Amino acid sequence: MTIANSVLLTDLYQLTMLQTYHAERMQETAVFEMFVRRLPPERGFLLAAGLEQALDYLETLHFSADELDWLANCGRFSSQFVNSLAEFRFTGTVHALPEGTVFFADEPILRIIAPLPQAQLVESRLLNLIHYQTLIASKAARCVLAAPGKLLVDFGMRRAHGAEAGLLAARAAYLAGFGGTATVLAGMRFGIPLFGTMAHSLVQAHDREEDAFEHFAAAQPDNVVLLLDTYDTEAAARKLAALATHLQARGIAIKGVRIDSGDLGENARRVRRILDEGGLRQITLFASGDLDEYRLQELLARGAPIDGFGIGTRLDISTDAPTVELVYKLQEYADKPRRKRSEGKATWPGRKQVYRRTEADGAFAADCLGLEAYPQPGEPLLQPVMVEGRRLAPPEPLDVIRNRVRAQLAALPPALRSNRTAPPYTVIVAPELRELADRLDRETH
Amino acid sequence: MTIANSVLLTDLYQLTMLQTYHAERMQETAVFEMFVRRLPPERGFLLAAGLEQALDYLETLHFSADELDWLANCGRFSSQFVNSLAEFRFTGTVHALPEGTVFFADEPILRIIAPLPQAQLVESRLLNLIHYQTLIASKAARCVLAAPGKLLVDFGMRRAHGAEAGLLAARAAYLAGFGGTATVLAGMRFGIPLFGTMAHSLVQAHDREEDAFEHFAAAQPDNVVLLLDTYDTEAAARKLAALATHLQARGIAIKGVRIDSGDLGENARRVRRILDEGGLRQITLFASGDLDEYRLQELLARGAPIDGFGIGTRLDISTDAPTVELVYKLQEYADKPRRKRSEGKATWPGRKQVYRRTEADGAFAADCLGLEAYPQPGEPLLQPVMVEGRRLAPPEPLDVIRNRVRAQLAALPPALRSNRTAPPYTVIVAPELRELADRLDRETH
Repeated sequence: MTIANSVLLTDLYQLTMLQTYHAERMQETAVFEMFVRRLPPERGFLLAAGLEQALDYLETLHFSADELDWLANCGRFSSQFVNSLAEFRFTGTVHALPEGTVFFADEPILRIIAPLPQAQLVESRLLNLIHYQTLIASKAARCVLAAPGKLLVDFGMRRAHGAEAGLLAARAAYLAGFGGTATVLAGMRFGIPLFGTMAHSLVQAHDREEDAFEHFAAAQPDNVVLLLDTYDTEAAARKLAALATHLQARGIAIKGVRIDSGDLGENARRVRRILDEGGLRQITLFASGDLDEYRLQELLARGAPIDGFGIGTRLDISTDAPTVELVYKLQEYADKPRRKRSEGKATWPGRKQVYRRTEADGAFAADCLGLEAYPQPGEPLLQPVMVEGRRLAPPEPLDVIRNRVRAQLAALPPALRSNRTAPPYTVIVAPELRELADRLDRETH
Repeated sequence: MTIANSVLLTDLYQLTMLQTYHAERMQETAVFEMFVRRLPPERGFLLAAGLEQALDYLETLHFSADELDWLANCGRFSSQFVNSLAEFRFTGTVHALPEGTVFFADEPILRIIAPLPQAQLVESRLLNLIHYQTLIASKAARCVLAAPGKLLVDFGMRRAHGAEAGLLAARAAYLAGFGGTATVLAGMRFGIPLFGTMAHSLVQAHDREEDAFEHFAAAQPDNVVLLLDTYDTEAAARKLAALATHLQARGIAIKGVRIDSGDLGENARRVRRILDEGGLRQITLFASGDLDEYRLQELLARGAPIDGFGIGTRLDISTDAPTVELVYKLQEYADKPRRKRSEGKATWPGRKQVYRRTEADGAFAADCLGLEAYPQPGEPLLQPVMVEGRRLAPPEPLDVIRNRVRAQLAALPPALRSNRTAPPYTVIVAPELRELADRLDRETH
């Protein structure tokens, strides 16, 4: 199936509300901000990601002839309203945190300023796009922090939730510091480095394991990584040690081996010993199988001699925290600040900015959530990225974002860099913002 | 971004192994089966879904000119191998459980019989497609069982993991017995009934809440569902009660209200009382906000007067069990059964069939996992669906699958129909299958 960036990838109520705005001629400027209500207990910080795909969506948004036909005939909308959608484009202004920026609860990561119908319609897909990459980049950053200097590779496409998740997980993980992905399409689309070994089926399809190793090595002599655990890991390592000399004579060097089951640390130690005793110190060890930042930390703390890790399902699903409470809320309409006061879901009104204060060495000290109109000390994090529906700059190269992430992670307070529960990072609410919220609460509706 | 059903939505190692198979002329028939290794502790059964999209993928699989160019120039593959891919098509045979069939651990839900390279390449995307819909259909079925007779609507697209997940969650939930979805594209693509109310932003964009209600009602008089909790739920209910008579005079009937925050059961009771006292018994109550089967059960056990539920994030992410251990394993190659013996990941070899035994009243009694060549008592569940790369029948209408699900859920052992932990359903392994596995283990590799 093909999924374009269809404008109908939205919730029905957006269109129903648009019909109301159309009928009431409510076209004035709305300001919506996107933020996370609470961090999941398993996360001390989040990493913003997905802006590139969000801007692409906004820039190309329109109703196709087929979509207009369908809407006209679905029995819900007036023909006058549907006709008005033919000219629908996004003409608004966007401010956002640059991809790879660390952020915390309540801090806006994206702001849309546009005529109310435009700003309303894009809610569902903007959330969908930014939620997922932010989730995965944040998870991947924790893996990177848990395994400094190790090669980490995204292996998760097969159990990611659909095609787009598989593809975008590769991008988000790479931004956060992964070395690459196994997903070929991510290599073609984004230029992300590809990694791969072999599957058990290749070994099983041969009658003898050593034949499988030899055939695989001969077919791609430049990149031989052999999988050892189809039947008996140590026996396979010994077969490989015997084979290596023979292959070397043919000019083929085995680059690495992969272990995918059992006690990965213990199996790695045994394989390392067999390889070292066979004079094969240059062969690297790669492990996979139910890995995440917790298992990485554990394996490395116990000194497992593993050089690289394939992280699959638990990365692409962010299994320990598979969602964050990302929302998109109206903060101002027709120049008046607005506030939702639903139980447990109240919002901070008005156009806001995040001001980050740093120590002399660049380490993050505290953030201040304030109003844009009342600047606070610290670096303002939200940047203009789109005006009148057009980007202000071409897409950022992935390497630029990777460098930003590296700098951001280095500047995190040490407690947040570990995967243990840490006291939350300080986010101060500026007095002018509190006053505005109080004032709005006093004005009865 | 547009994601076609690209053949490169696969793992690099599939292509690397294909290059080996090409070099070694390993083109004989392979048999792969897809199954779940273990049920998550939170699941007593699973519901097969996603076959339709899987067959569509297989039927249209090919390498485009762009993809061949990219592969030829990526420095990993011989030009002879890449040239051979230009003619690549899937020409195999597929057996599968019909969508909506209940299944358990170790039971094959899909079998591919095809030349080894074809059967190998499709692994990653077949898993990706079937994993997600199976996950969501299974979650949705639990919600349906928890809220008999209630209207359930998928609200989850915004936090689903990407566009395809959002779209396919709507399909999977509908198959499992949901009344519909809020995702407009799922209405257009699959003909799934659409539901929607209004968002807080519409209320916030008006200076007076009652104006928002009135404008919204006037703009779509046939389908007025008002959201009550933007500021104060009870106050909003009273405004609505006052407004209703006035609207009625204009020929507009309010159909329902939605509550989205606070103690949903308590808020529903208060709103119900206000509406009933206002003579508005016909207005239905709809609730949303962090709902799943556990919360539904709880609310309904406490007698909450709620008629319908919007289930969002926790459905589309299957938050309590966001993945199942779905795998795809080689069971036979060149007419010889094959078995993987990795620690904790051993497989049952050979071409298998699931035989379901039922009581006189149709209730499921036990399953038997056996070899296809040695039929067992019970109904064989795997059916042929594709031969020589062509479907044997047109896609099943969604209503046919919904009826199947209804019958399957009714036939489940009562312990499995509740959401409490139940003793696992009995799956017997046929003696011939045990003997085959033992024989393969004795033959050393």
